[in-house]
Amino acid sequence: MPRYFLTLEYHGAAFHGLQRQGDGLPTVQGVLEDALAILNTDAVTIHAAGRTDAGVHASGQCVHADLRKEYPPHRLCESLNALVRPWPLAVRRAAVVPDTLHARFDASERRYRYTVINHPAPSPLRAGQAWEVTKPLDVEAMRAATKHLIGRHDFSSFRATQCQAPSPVRTLDALEMTVVDDTIFFDTRAKSYLHHQVRNMVGTLVMVGKGVLHPTAIPDILAARDRRAAGMTAPAMGLCLTGVSYAHAV
Amino acid sequence: MPRYFLTLEYHGAAFHGLQRQGDGLPTVQGVLEDALAILNTDAVTIHAAGRTDAGVHASGQCVHADLRKEYPPHRLCESLNALVRPWPLAVRRAAVVPDTLHARFDASERRYRYTVINHPAPSPLRAGQAWEVTKPLDVEAMRAATKHLIGRHDFSSFRATQCQAPSPVRTLDALEMTVVDDTIFFDTRAKSYLHHQVRNMVGTLVMVGKGVLHPTAIPDILAARDRRAAGMTAPAMGLCLTGVSYAHAV
Repeated sequence: MPRYFLTLEYHGAAFHGLQRQGDGLPTVQGVLEDALAILNTDAVTIHAAGRTDAGVHASGQCVHADLRKEYPPHRLCESLNALVRPWPLAVRRAAVVPDTLHARFDASERRYRYTVINHPAPSPLRAGQAWEVTKPLDVEAMRAATKHLIGRHDFSSFRATQCQAPSPVRTLDALEMTVVDDTIFFDTRAKSYLHHQVRNMVGTLVMVGKGVLHPTAIPDILAARDRRAAGMTAPAMGLCLTGVSYAHAV
Repeated sequence: MPRYFLTLEYHGAAFHGLQRQGDGLPTVQGVLEDALAILNTDAVTIHAAGRTDAGVHASGQCVHADLRKEYPPHRLCESLNALVRPWPLAVRRAAVVPDTLHARFDASERRYRYTVINHPAPSPLRAGQAWEVTKPLDVEAMRAATKHLIGRHDFSSFRATQCQAPSPVRTLDALEMTVVDDTIFFDTRAKSYLHHQVRNMVGTLVMVGKGVLHPTAIPDILAARDRRAAGMTAPAMGLCLTGVSYAHAV
């Protein structure tokens, strides 16, 4: 049973999240497992590095799957990409890995990008892949606020109420803001995140940008350990899982 | 009759090109003029810097229109963006200009970006906004070929047969290639272009990248002054009109 790591790109709008729901609604796992089962002539279960929510995109999601046969990686990509059509999902890379390597448990870093467009008019070319904020944002205040979120903290205030992680403590290794014309990119790096953590951080940073919160309020929001202390959850469509790293090269 | 310059962004897939066709098919001109006519309570004719073909996108198209009333520019944008909904078209900027300034005739530079994705798998997040070329391309050969296209030339070999320009001579001020991971951006700058010139140049450069043509073949292709000497027309969906400049600030 060779184990494959597959790197996935998908448009989140077409899926009710990554995880199979059991209610027949399309999910990334459902569509990909159905394709793998046809190829494998047997059921296949995938394990994903990031359980992206409904509407969240990925350009570098990583999953593993055990198949009965050996396939040249490029043939496996080709076959799966033909089978998942016309879903906006593609296997961009495949690699055989040791069968002890687990896409979820062995991930050492997950990277997300959140995109905000700050412009009074809509952007038809980027619709559905960014949060379009029409009110002018103070990007320097937002940048000052990001500094308080980086590092090891109890992120309870940025955690979805339905989050099931045993501990609310996470280490945010990076939260970089890049401004290009009317667009603000937030790039995060961490071993793992709480449920909705990135979207709740961005929602709060946008409130800072609107002047509703002062950058120096962030330490108090963290200290409150209460979801109600932080800002809104930013919309799913602005978020993209851009990459996953492993201690072992895959 | 104040004259407005409007900067437009649109997704080309929704329109049968910029110019009103007279056959009822949706065009950028048709949708925008209909919105302007409602606002103006009278017919309005727009004049555009670039007559983009069916399927070609724009992030910086520039048009002018004469209206009966003065509007604060941001209100004009808001009203037009509400009126053109749900078409993937937005007025990103409006400015009052002297009524002697013409969006088409006074443009001193038009900039286009052509995007090629060079990867064996599809890219669901960028589908419809790039030409996806699966065969590996030799980007250094392509870069060498671009050098022969820059400058003042008779571009007959890169001109659509239906092109109506009186002269086939154009000055291509820039044709820059930028490679980012699996993506190749071609950025062009020129006062004006022949019909399909950018798409025909990119189609030919991709043939160079595939090894079908040698970079040094470009001077001979130009000298042939024959459309059959150059390569295929690259697909419309990879092309975007990114900006227009005027000698007078607008």
